[in-house]
Amino acid sequence: MLKGLMQDRPLLVSSLIEHAARCHPGTEIVSRTAEGLISRCTYGDIGRRSRQLAAALTALGVKPGDRIGALAWNGYRHMELYYGVSGVGAVLHTIHPRQFPEQIEYVVNHAGDQYLFFDITFAPLIERLAPALKTVKRFVAMTDRKNLPLSDIPNLLCYEDLIAEASADFEWPSFDETTASSLCYTAGTTGTPKGVLYSHRSTVLHAFALCAADSLSLSARESALLAAPMFHVNAWGVPYAAAMCGMKLVLPGPVHDGRSIYELLREERVTLALGAPYFWAPLFKYLDGMRRNPRKELSLERVVVGGIAPASELVERFATTFGARVTQVWGMTETSPIGAICPSSAMHADAPDGQIKQGRAPFGIEMRLVDDSGKAVAHDGRTPGHLLVRGPWVASAYFKSAEGSRLDADGFFDTGDIATIDEHGYLQITDRAADAIRSGDQWMSSVALENAAAGHPAVSEAAVIALPQGERPTHRLLVILPRTDFDVSREEMLLYLAAKLDRRWLPDDVAFVEQFPHTATGKVRKGRLREMFAEHRWPTA
Amino acid sequence: MLKGLMQDRPLLVSSLIEHAARCHPGTEIVSRTAEGLISRCTYGDIGRRSRQLAAALTALGVKPGDRIGALAWNGYRHMELYYGVSGVGAVLHTIHPRQFPEQIEYVVNHAGDQYLFFDITFAPLIERLAPALKTVKRFVAMTDRKNLPLSDIPNLLCYEDLIAEASADFEWPSFDETTASSLCYTAGTTGTPKGVLYSHRSTVLHAFALCAADSLSLSARESALLAAPMFHVNAWGVPYAAAMCGMKLVLPGPVHDGRSIYELLREERVTLALGAPYFWAPLFKYLDGMRRNPRKELSLERVVVGGIAPASELVERFATTFGARVTQVWGMTETSPIGAICPSSAMHADAPDGQIKQGRAPFGIEMRLVDDSGKAVAHDGRTPGHLLVRGPWVASAYFKSAEGSRLDADGFFDTGDIATIDEHGYLQITDRAADAIRSGDQWMSSVALENAAAGHPAVSEAAVIALPQGERPTHRLLVILPRTDFDVSREEMLLYLAAKLDRRWLPDDVAFVEQFPHTATGKVRKGRLREMFAEHRWPTA
Repeated sequence: MLKGLMQDRPLLVSSLIEHAARCHPGTEIVSRTAEGLISRCTYGDIGRRSRQLAAALTALGVKPGDRIGALAWNGYRHMELYYGVSGVGAVLHTIHPRQFPEQIEYVVNHAGDQYLFFDITFAPLIERLAPALKTVKRFVAMTDRKNLPLSDIPNLLCYEDLIAEASADFEWPSFDETTASSLCYTAGTTGTPKGVLYSHRSTVLHAFALCAADSLSLSARESALLAAPMFHVNAWGVPYAAAMCGMKLVLPGPVHDGRSIYELLREERVTLALGAPYFWAPLFKYLDGMRRNPRKELSLERVVVGGIAPASELVERFATTFGARVTQVWGMTETSPIGAICPSSAMHADAPDGQIKQGRAPFGIEMRLVDDSGKAVAHDGRTPGHLLVRGPWVASAYFKSAEGSRLDADGFFDTGDIATIDEHGYLQITDRAADAIRSGDQWMSSVALENAAAGHPAVSEAAVIALPQGERPTHRLLVILPRTDFDVSREEMLLYLAAKLDRRWLPDDVAFVEQFPHTATGKVRKGRLREMFAEHRWPTA
Repeated sequence: MLKGLMQDRPLLVSSLIEHAARCHPGTEIVSRTAEGLISRCTYGDIGRRSRQLAAALTALGVKPGDRIGALAWNGYRHMELYYGVSGVGAVLHTIHPRQFPEQIEYVVNHAGDQYLFFDITFAPLIERLAPALKTVKRFVAMTDRKNLPLSDIPNLLCYEDLIAEASADFEWPSFDETTASSLCYTAGTTGTPKGVLYSHRSTVLHAFALCAADSLSLSARESALLAAPMFHVNAWGVPYAAAMCGMKLVLPGPVHDGRSIYELLREERVTLALGAPYFWAPLFKYLDGMRRNPRKELSLERVVVGGIAPASELVERFATTFGARVTQVWGMTETSPIGAICPSSAMHADAPDGQIKQGRAPFGIEMRLVDDSGKAVAHDGRTPGHLLVRGPWVASAYFKSAEGSRLDADGFFDTGDIATIDEHGYLQITDRAADAIRSGDQWMSSVALENAAAGHPAVSEAAVIALPQGERPTHRLLVILPRTDFDVSREEMLLYLAAKLDRRWLPDDVAFVEQFPHTATGKVRKGRLREMFAEHRWPTA
């Protein structure tokens, strides 16, 4: 081999914020803080304060590889943690606050967090959990002295005091780009949360992918409302990619009601908004009750939705209400998360059943479909297979997991999804593998069945699970949460579906619940549903 | 250090074409061949044929690290060399055909090319040079058997025969991403050509930078005419970035007359065109003589110009003639080449003298200005300094150069340019270091002086050189090529300039020439000019 003669510069997270501070020093980061105020700062400020934070962490004895927990909303201090912690070679462990306290306790102890940073909203939670968090040396309230919570949190530090005492002359260390930069635990639709340990290299390459014109097309010309939470999968990597291109960020903090979000969109002239489908419900509800003209008052042009596939209705609604185009992103914690991107114009492209497709892989993600025996199946838009992914921002193993590598012989990671890919490369998720059932040689998509059921006016939410009847899952149960004040029977539902779907795709039974079990990220916990209906008595034919 | 747990996947050139072949198999590459025909193929075809070429090279005994020369126009076979040669770990050495034959002989021998691929246009040149090219084992004519040149080229192979005999089942090898992928010699405005040895890593990272929305915004939605030659600096990296995003490419081959280019723009519905300023002259000339309505007939929206800064007049002309926006790129062979990007809207931003700025560094390029002693100078848009650059796609040394590393203690490369950078990060090149002259503590920009002179109606081309009067360059000579049928005197020129510029910026003398010495890429060879005027007799005060 002959080595090239180009400069040997590692891809480091710290170089992202240094770039933004150098080339876009005046571009704003607007935050709604946990204290409830609107706070404005710039990339120049965040660059300086991240260096101060890095100096403070070093003074506290934080070493490369140490884990530092964060329990915080989207805001500028959280962003400083993204850069300050990873920048010294330590690992930022972002913690989902909507989990059960015992799950938070589990992940902090499993990660071995040495410091825990938190927004003051979470002071009561920290107070309660502190005795069980054995590895945490100090708790840091992300606020200034006058807003410091009066509480019995032991070893409490004040973020602004920490910063104020440190020097902005700190020089970022240089190290191997495969060094761990951040840690995020999977939401766990089934089983125990598992830690995905991102690297500086994966984070920077993923940021390049986000900035691409055919991807999220992030740009210094946009003002972006980042609603995807910074406590989960690094807010889709946007805090890194925004620094890469010098994009203005609007961070909504803990206040997600329709009116507050509307005002942020208007006041900050937001052109691009990014968040999961459920984030937007309060905004639409607020607008339903108001005589507002969003097209006139707002500058919103694009919305990126992810986490859960958007309903066609939501895509329509963004278009009619705001004149905004929707881009869908598909991915998972293990894919950093971008695995596929779909512009609204392509969502229904060639989908035989009119369902929304998840999009096309950007360069860096390779997808492969295989059958149960691991043999490749055709990318013809019809044949479903287990979806495997490979690439420099895809996980290879979980943090401190006894299982070791999760990759097959060719280096692919099994997503646990069943999907089709068409001849243009468009992915469509049809099932979770655990809920996939075959009829003869045909897979029957539970996603298609769920979507059909959700079209019934009385259905608020629908989920299909596969249950064993004997050894293998063979029976499918459609579980329905009816809308308040609506009534629908099992028979009516089956008749409704029979008119829409092939007979073989119909569920074996329909059940009704008063509440759905959800993960912290809003996904249906199908594992819990399967437990709830483990003893289900199937109708006899 | 704690290592992240992401997949260990190298950034390789072969993965770019595999991505395009997998996700954009039907997207077209349209070429005007050396044989004069229009040829259409797809990323699927180029993926397959690159693998065949790789198999053929392997069968010929080509080993990783071997250099393979290419003397060819922009076309699909040249693109197959980009992937097939680098994909096996060998190095594609692209050769500028507009150099003097002795320069071509020098670079082929210096590179040690083992095979030399050539378009049939260059058969006479190859025939003449072959005896002197000691390292070349076989010459490969990039054509099929029926167009094979009848000539005395020894050890001649036919490209299409080579491909036809090889298998498309070839599997790309995986290797370290710092492996050399391609080699390009600098045009040499002064001195001997120097080889820049790109790596797979630098090439893929540079492609990411090109696809960014704020950079060239390359996209699968565009149809792009690539006029930047593939024999120089990898055609700005576009053949790689186009595969990354699945962009349609239109490759004009050897036919650059206005009518042919216009027809390509129209027939292929070109939306984006990329090329040096001089490439467009025949097109504008053609349109001047025709009753055409380019805005109605064409789809051209954007033009990217580089190599030489465009004149304001050219930017205007693209806007008025085509309704097309101009993006300027600045860079050099040593920067892969993208060092800065400037949208037309920002070209004059805050430029006190109304001159065109070169743009802002993308993430990945760090710029620093220093004075003669190496001390950093302010980025205030006024203070010029030596421009240093650092980043993963910037060269660190030249191929087989005794000098070794060209980097300073902080890892920066000296571009040899004098420039300013404003507070928004916008670069403006004011001089080559060799032509920079100070008046007191002020640098006087020769670029500003050249631009002012070029504004005179009788001036076809203008260049400023610094010449010694004693030990250091202290005197500046303005060299002018007058337009045909125009007449202008030294005195008239000085009066004209005195009305536009500060007295201290005026040249010490004006000289006239009948022809300018140019490099193969169209830049003025100032080294040659300095030789020509070494004995210049300055006017006495």
